[in-house]
Amino acid sequence: MEEVYNFSAGPAVLPQEVKSIVQEELANYRQTGMSVMEMSHRSNPFQDIIDEAEALLRELMNIPDNYHVLFLQGGASLQFSMLPMNLLTKHKKAEYVLTGSWSVKAAKEAEKFGDITTKISSNDKNFTYYPTVDLTTLSTDLDYIHITTNNTIEGTVIPSIPDTKQIPLVADMSSNILSEHYDVSKFGLIYAGAQKNIGPAGLTIAIVREDLIGSPIENCPTLLNYETYSKNQSLYNTPPTFSIYVAKLVFEWLKQKGGIAAIEKTNRQKAGMLYDFIDQSKLFHSLVKPGSRSLMNIPFTAESDELNAAFIKQAGEKGLVNLKGHRSVGGMRASIYNAMPVKGVQALIDFMESFEKANK
Amino acid sequence: MEEVYNFSAGPAVLPQEVKSIVQEELANYRQTGMSVMEMSHRSNPFQDIIDEAEALLRELMNIPDNYHVLFLQGGASLQFSMLPMNLLTKHKKAEYVLTGSWSVKAAKEAEKFGDITTKISSNDKNFTYYPTVDLTTLSTDLDYIHITTNNTIEGTVIPSIPDTKQIPLVADMSSNILSEHYDVSKFGLIYAGAQKNIGPAGLTIAIVREDLIGSPIENCPTLLNYETYSKNQSLYNTPPTFSIYVAKLVFEWLKQKGGIAAIEKTNRQKAGMLYDFIDQSKLFHSLVKPGSRSLMNIPFTAESDELNAAFIKQAGEKGLVNLKGHRSVGGMRASIYNAMPVKGVQALIDFMESFEKANK
Repeated sequence: MEEVYNFSAGPAVLPQEVKSIVQEELANYRQTGMSVMEMSHRSNPFQDIIDEAEALLRELMNIPDNYHVLFLQGGASLQFSMLPMNLLTKHKKAEYVLTGSWSVKAAKEAEKFGDITTKISSNDKNFTYYPTVDLTTLSTDLDYIHITTNNTIEGTVIPSIPDTKQIPLVADMSSNILSEHYDVSKFGLIYAGAQKNIGPAGLTIAIVREDLIGSPIENCPTLLNYETYSKNQSLYNTPPTFSIYVAKLVFEWLKQKGGIAAIEKTNRQKAGMLYDFIDQSKLFHSLVKPGSRSLMNIPFTAESDELNAAFIKQAGEKGLVNLKGHRSVGGMRASIYNAMPVKGVQALIDFMESFEKANK
Repeated sequence: MEEVYNFSAGPAVLPQEVKSIVQEELANYRQTGMSVMEMSHRSNPFQDIIDEAEALLRELMNIPDNYHVLFLQGGASLQFSMLPMNLLTKHKKAEYVLTGSWSVKAAKEAEKFGDITTKISSNDKNFTYYPTVDLTTLSTDLDYIHITTNNTIEGTVIPSIPDTKQIPLVADMSSNILSEHYDVSKFGLIYAGAQKNIGPAGLTIAIVREDLIGSPIENCPTLLNYETYSKNQSLYNTPPTFSIYVAKLVFEWLKQKGGIAAIEKTNRQKAGMLYDFIDQSKLFHSLVKPGSRSLMNIPFTAESDELNAAFIKQAGEKGLVNLKGHRSVGGMRASIYNAMPVKGVQALIDFMESFEKANK
């Protein structure tokens, strides 16, 4: 196909403009005679790339000076271990707010390194809403409180960021980083796999308040110690250079679009269009409670497994691809990250409308 | 510059043919309407890519069926920890053959998990030769013996692979995997960062004999357990998809070139040309003993720091780039991996010849 709208949950759609630049610069980056893929991570052109990537991310997210920006590998899944190995070391106690499959996995990994409580959870209703993060129910000597700001599989988002006072708030922001405004100073640590709103898979970003770095577990592997990266500007060993380059281009694109304020407005428009259509539809419905609905990942179902399967198949034939829901939820899921244009969401709604007419 | 010869030690030169394909397919991979970077790791097109990558590597290296091929992240440096976390668990004893900076780092990481001996070492002569791996000096209850087949910084290569009998032999093959024939069945585990002979940084490959998988340390992080990858065909979480795609193209290129037998012949020719020139030169000399000389990384020096600096500068102006030696060795280093054409080495020799004439 010439053009498709890619609703994949990740790796996911990239901005058309970014792909064009990557293609153009692929074999010969800015007259260096080589591809970024071939460039030493100690070379001046790559140093410029990583410097610019960090500066752009700091600008876009308004990251305070007392936070380090780290370029890591291993995905959010490796952060599930790296985080407790670095932060679960004082009281060895943390609360993991359970809001979906990924937070359950994160908590399970953390249990290898300390006492994990999961007092706040939406498991009672199959993770279809975002629970209130009520601090009064929690112990006061926690090393941190872990939240997942957006649940990729279940399609929920945290309505507002709680004030956790002296307890560091840690957020897995993999599926909605850079999509709406968050005040970084409310967090102790933010981490995110790149493959949704940042760039290609293989890059993970962590934003870490400096006082939380430097007290890892005993005999912590060097590559799993945040300090290894903060002290060496993420160049202790070879980082995923090409992914960092593409991330830099995505950050530039986002800045040109008007930054997070502008993209959040577009994201609210896109998600609003789709939720409005679903809510008035007699065929499709959302499983997520209003007030907890994600701007990025929108699961929905038709009335039967047969209709769901027919919808996914026919949509694919029209170039609306990767709409199959996660196996644990079923139905459909439209992931509409920053790079999904409004007209992509409109094309999906148009098709849903015609499918409903044909199958009512 | 339009064309350069890139002698970087890594990330390093890629085959021109591979770059052309990546560029051509960048925005729309085989009529999918999307870039490989945007493709779900659970999609059919990506499944084909990772299947083909594994099949090609198995064919090229003649990997026996009782070995798993794992696509990992974190570079060889993370393997320095992952390896002992998985294999240093029975007797908790291993020998690390010290042949350069990287093996020293590997041993230091392993010490966090067990008793490490370093009885075999070329540290006495500043790692300028490869020591004999004499098993009679070693304990017989080791969990493994670790070697570095090629030392990127020091420019040495192991002359022949020792028979370690019942003790698993583990090799860091980062800088010479796929460059010459190795009998995989002699090894328990082989690992390599991709950014020299495989593809872009951010991908790490491990080839692991199946009986060595499944007995990690207690509470091993899921992402650092080889079994997580062997049981899920490296798709437990999102792998570095784009790097795997480029690696697949490099494997195809190598197969078309005639495989490892053919590339080894070319590599011996290329290295031979350069060593022959250096050995007859009155200005340049090699620090590495004949018999231990790497086919991939060739450090050499002129007679003074001033001449070295002038050489590097003038070579760069002629498009012979990244020839500066590692800071711990000084002088120059020509890394001539599989993708460096013979004419690139000839261009270097031609320039060395003219530089010598001008500076004798």
